[in-house]
Amino acid sequence: MYLSIEADFLNSIAEGLIKSPLQLNGLLESDAEIFKINPNDKDSFVLKVDTIHEEIQSKLYTDPFLIGWMGITAPISDLAAVGAMPIGVVLSLILPSNLDQKWLKEFKSGINSACQTYKIYVLGGDTNQDNIISVSVTAIGKMNEKTPRQRKTIQENDYLFSSGPLGQGNAFAYQQLFEHSNPTGFLPKAKIEESQLIYPFAACCIDTSDGLFPALSVLAEVNQIGFQLEGPVRNFLNLQTKQLAKSSKLQDWFFLAGPHGEYELVFSVPENSIDNFRISCKKNLFKPIYLGKAIKEQKIRYKSNEKNIECRPADIPNLFHQSEGNLSRYLELLLEAHSNWTSP
Amino acid sequence: MYLSIEADFLNSIAEGLIKSPLQLNGLLESDAEIFKINPNDKDSFVLKVDTIHEEIQSKLYTDPFLIGWMGITAPISDLAAVGAMPIGVVLSLILPSNLDQKWLKEFKSGINSACQTYKIYVLGGDTNQDNIISVSVTAIGKMNEKTPRQRKTIQENDYLFSSGPLGQGNAFAYQQLFEHSNPTGFLPKAKIEESQLIYPFAACCIDTSDGLFPALSVLAEVNQIGFQLEGPVRNFLNLQTKQLAKSSKLQDWFFLAGPHGEYELVFSVPENSIDNFRISCKKNLFKPIYLGKAIKEQKIRYKSNEKNIECRPADIPNLFHQSEGNLSRYLELLLEAHSNWTSP
Repeated sequence: MYLSIEADFLNSIAEGLIKSPLQLNGLLESDAEIFKINPNDKDSFVLKVDTIHEEIQSKLYTDPFLIGWMGITAPISDLAAVGAMPIGVVLSLILPSNLDQKWLKEFKSGINSACQTYKIYVLGGDTNQDNIISVSVTAIGKMNEKTPRQRKTIQENDYLFSSGPLGQGNAFAYQQLFEHSNPTGFLPKAKIEESQLIYPFAACCIDTSDGLFPALSVLAEVNQIGFQLEGPVRNFLNLQTKQLAKSSKLQDWFFLAGPHGEYELVFSVPENSIDNFRISCKKNLFKPIYLGKAIKEQKIRYKSNEKNIECRPADIPNLFHQSEGNLSRYLELLLEAHSNWTSP
Repeated sequence: MYLSIEADFLNSIAEGLIKSPLQLNGLLESDAEIFKINPNDKDSFVLKVDTIHEEIQSKLYTDPFLIGWMGITAPISDLAAVGAMPIGVVLSLILPSNLDQKWLKEFKSGINSACQTYKIYVLGGDTNQDNIISVSVTAIGKMNEKTPRQRKTIQENDYLFSSGPLGQGNAFAYQQLFEHSNPTGFLPKAKIEESQLIYPFAACCIDTSDGLFPALSVLAEVNQIGFQLEGPVRNFLNLQTKQLAKSSKLQDWFFLAGPHGEYELVFSVPENSIDNFRISCKKNLFKPIYLGKAIKEQKIRYKSNEKNIECRPADIPNLFHQSEGNLSRYLELLLEAHSNWTSP
């Protein structure tokens, strides 16, 4: 089975640790940890820690402003997925002792901009010195008498949406790591406001921090279902990613394969709520992307570059796992998979 | 001025970040971050992140059980200092991919033992792979309609206590790093229960995670005061540390100089509460160590190995800072300081 960074933790670390009786979510069932302080409380709280580390080590993130911004955005996006309102963050940093002051200024500017955007505050933190840079952020949020959205409870025929166009995360990674073209404009915003619009209608929700297919793989695993995506996946991509897919001669679906996502929300709406959801979208000028439907069979079916593709939900994220982080190898595996899985 | 790891963060990172209007503590004023969700709420919440990193890099901590135990204990001790009841933790780990399963098992056993001791739970976490080990833990706790204890509001003539004997942290470090004697028995417990006994009487509280003198330096800085410690500091040391001071021929006060402490609580009791505090201690069989009194002059005065010593509060922690983490150099600086500061 595919192991995302998160699933890795859950498997190797969480196993054998004692679970809180006041925690509402099980392993893998939610983007963030949901708990009550006392069993009869109406309100629940949400905590999430996320670390920008491998992104820095692999030189995917080199811009200090982006590192600060993403440090805050990653856990806040998980709070958005469960429908919580964020309150604040604490930072745990590993920084080299000889860190350049300009770097630090830009980094703090990224943190500040993200905090202002999400109307939250840095409550505190700690630093350790080492020859690496690592940015770990714990976010706290609150659910006001509401049930958090988790990753479970999708059913066959439920409608699947994304809060916005996809592919920017992988497009950025391709440009940064393969083309070395120093791409600009990648500064994804955690979907706090969209989360509140989605909340009344969605049965489940997950963010695409690892890309669309890894998110679908988790939903499929937790709910023991599959997905039939509708129309060519090119329709899900944002304009720049469409252009890059063309100029790079890569398949459209590669840009949805992860492991670097765009921090949109992917959510399901049950059939009996779909009309009201569409009315609400119109009223709020919210334009989610319709992706397809949940199906009983544990497969993912989609169409990319004129080909029909079918695979098991974990197959795509497994390719990255199999490449052991070697990106050239990963690209080869994606190309092989494309020829193995397609039918005309 | 002395910069503890925490103060380093506050100076280099927190400066320029926007402070939450709902946060109750200012910079350096509290062991943990205290905040309300809404301005009129009676309850406040407490968050603290603490990272076991330099302790691992420097080989101060090599035992995986101890690393797991200390990862949990460090932030929980800060929650104890403010008087909060701990609820749970999230972990952010950096671990090598080739980590030995026995190591992992022992590490998790340390985490579990600490969680059971403090009656808390691991709510979740994330892992990143790298060639280092780093354990960052964020703890959340709650104050039930109570005012948290901070580091401020000590006044001249207030009584200063420690929740228990001191010196074990530095004794452990000396044995581990200088004698290479593989010391056992260092497994400090965060003082959650003691914290509740102290709470009604204490004006301020701080833990000795960095050692006694660094804690006093912070209290002196925040409150613009000094301390007159009473009796020889040998009286503050636990039995094993007294023996080590003798066998190593080091001065007693070196074992209170930090930077590695014993996670006791140091707190002040105002003159008009001292009688009631002593009655409560007797009733609860609680035996705090009387350390001395707050004085107006910003000095620390104490007696060690028959010598009277006087220095500025920041002088002792500054020695470690000055050594840049070189422990042999640190020991030289302590010896120099001992001859410069003493009078017969």
